[in-house]
Amino acid sequence: MMESVAELQKFCGEIIPLDQAVLARAQARLDNLTKPRGSLGKLEMLAAKTCAMRGTLAAKVDKKVILTFAGDHGVVAEGISAFPQEVTPQMVYNFLAGGAGVNVLARHVGAEVRVIDVGVAVPLAVEGLLARKVRLGTENMTKGPAMTEADALAAIKVGIEVAQQAIADGAEILGTGDMGIGNTTPSAALFAALLPAAPAEITGRGTGIDDETLARKIAVVAKALAVNSDKLATPLGALAAVGGLEIGGICGAILAAAHQRTPIVVDGFISSAAALVAIKLAPNVLDYCFFSHMSAEQGHRLFFEKMGLAPLLHLDLRLGEGTGAALSMGLVDAGLKIMNEMATFGEAGVSEAE
Amino acid sequence: MMESVAELQKFCGEIIPLDQAVLARAQARLDNLTKPRGSLGKLEMLAAKTCAMRGTLAAKVDKKVILTFAGDHGVVAEGISAFPQEVTPQMVYNFLAGGAGVNVLARHVGAEVRVIDVGVAVPLAVEGLLARKVRLGTENMTKGPAMTEADALAAIKVGIEVAQQAIADGAEILGTGDMGIGNTTPSAALFAALLPAAPAEITGRGTGIDDETLARKIAVVAKALAVNSDKLATPLGALAAVGGLEIGGICGAILAAAHQRTPIVVDGFISSAAALVAIKLAPNVLDYCFFSHMSAEQGHRLFFEKMGLAPLLHLDLRLGEGTGAALSMGLVDAGLKIMNEMATFGEAGVSEAE
Repeated sequence: MMESVAELQKFCGEIIPLDQAVLARAQARLDNLTKPRGSLGKLEMLAAKTCAMRGTLAAKVDKKVILTFAGDHGVVAEGISAFPQEVTPQMVYNFLAGGAGVNVLARHVGAEVRVIDVGVAVPLAVEGLLARKVRLGTENMTKGPAMTEADALAAIKVGIEVAQQAIADGAEILGTGDMGIGNTTPSAALFAALLPAAPAEITGRGTGIDDETLARKIAVVAKALAVNSDKLATPLGALAAVGGLEIGGICGAILAAAHQRTPIVVDGFISSAAALVAIKLAPNVLDYCFFSHMSAEQGHRLFFEKMGLAPLLHLDLRLGEGTGAALSMGLVDAGLKIMNEMATFGEAGVSEAE
Repeated sequence: MMESVAELQKFCGEIIPLDQAVLARAQARLDNLTKPRGSLGKLEMLAAKTCAMRGTLAAKVDKKVILTFAGDHGVVAEGISAFPQEVTPQMVYNFLAGGAGVNVLARHVGAEVRVIDVGVAVPLAVEGLLARKVRLGTENMTKGPAMTEADALAAIKVGIEVAQQAIADGAEILGTGDMGIGNTTPSAALFAALLPAAPAEITGRGTGIDDETLARKIAVVAKALAVNSDKLATPLGALAAVGGLEIGGICGAILAAAHQRTPIVVDGFISSAAALVAIKLAPNVLDYCFFSHMSAEQGHRLFFEKMGLAPLLHLDLRLGEGTGAALSMGLVDAGLKIMNEMATFGEAGVSEAE
């Protein structure tokens, strides 16, 4: 499957919107629980929307899987990151050893972490890794496209397939995660191309760069957009020209989750850039996405404002990996427990509002 | 103990600030974990502050207890609530049967809920209830003080004692919760008196009242402040004149947690009013409080702005009971797990920032 753009378009066209009848029945159930109507705010929204995705009031998210995609970026040659590129594979090993932030927070909420090599720049062989490398990192996008459209399509396909496998294994909710030194730069470029936004307003400090490096990073984003200006008209073209392999993987996972009516929690800045590509490919995916948090990375706020969306958490996170997704999966779980475990006014013998 | 105002003042004076040396050591430990510095935002703050409270880098919050205090309010005679007063005892039974929102969210984070009758307006006898009734509800504060200062002191004493008992039973973190039909009205009056604030800017819709009832509620708050104007100069005087018994209990629990260097998560609007009384009695308690969420109740935002504080969650919650405290206890736990379970750069062989 998914060998051509036409097949991708067909797949995207099969994504259906929320079941509004189930949404209404879920809210009616929530309104009959022993609390003032709407008083559990976004927890109620999470529960009702998840039911409407799944098409049943008996929705559960007991089995949770975070898909953390790793890839490298040729643009690091421009000196836009605080960390050296060797950290990408080092962190992949750290994920597989269970010592990274996403591992800790995934354990905290009872989620499994699956790590996918879509495009780390060095060969990797380690037990537990999903080895789906499309190529050894991208090219430097200031000198031409980061990759071909065929590579971008292949990365999306990897994301679709690993998400479908996770769902086949029983996952009732997915979370996205990323690892790729330098990847706030292509993410900023994708936002700039697709929102659209000016490089200076969307580009931030990533893992923690100084003023001089930030100025260079903004110039790098602007140059990548200029060099690739003839390739940015379509979401797939933009992903190929100024995106990344792990970003393509996340985009594919979001498409596959929506296609199988499964909630997916979008992590931070990089995952949101991937979500934006997915939304441009298939607007209905928005119905299946929960946005986990407002990243401390400058520019994330602009994404939410321009899209008319609101994230769940405001904890000044800026780590990626799926850390925010993990925390928010716990909130979805809490919302469904409210729906399934709270007593109704009738059951508890509690008087209703006058 | 605590038979006089002088004894309360002595107790408050024994509350010490955070251990700054431990705070610095905790942040140094966090900075050495495999993530960019500060990239887990408020989770890092929660972990470091909890260590500084406990005086050790080995802090844990495995045992969590939510203290939900119940009391009634004579001011309901003024028609300021959407629900009838009989709902207070009905919800106490619901808490003890495990069917309320706080029970579900407490189970979700692994917390125990303890329910304390400080002043429900009817006699209650039910297994599992901590029966510490000071009196059968308060008086109508628009006609005079809600209670005497001796009653307010007794309510604080109840809160201190049940919090001390929870800590003696092994609790490593406490959460506050409230139940009392009408209690956003005395809470608004307390904020108005102690922040201070105008009744119209601090008074909101509580469980869901219409415009006409809201206008009446604002007038009721203003009248209570006018009638009791000679009693609002001290925090204890304000609590007695325009507060409530469950609010006094929560205030006492916060004082006791701080006194024993134990983190306490302050729930929503009503718990924040109690926290404000505690802060006015003993400013150092602020070092031991985490504020769980920005309530959808109008006025809560003003409290945070005037106090220069920031809550953890923004989920449009407005239920009380300890529901927001439960969710935020989970975040404190997550922060400490980050500190205790993540690999360091050295352990994982990950390169540091250049």
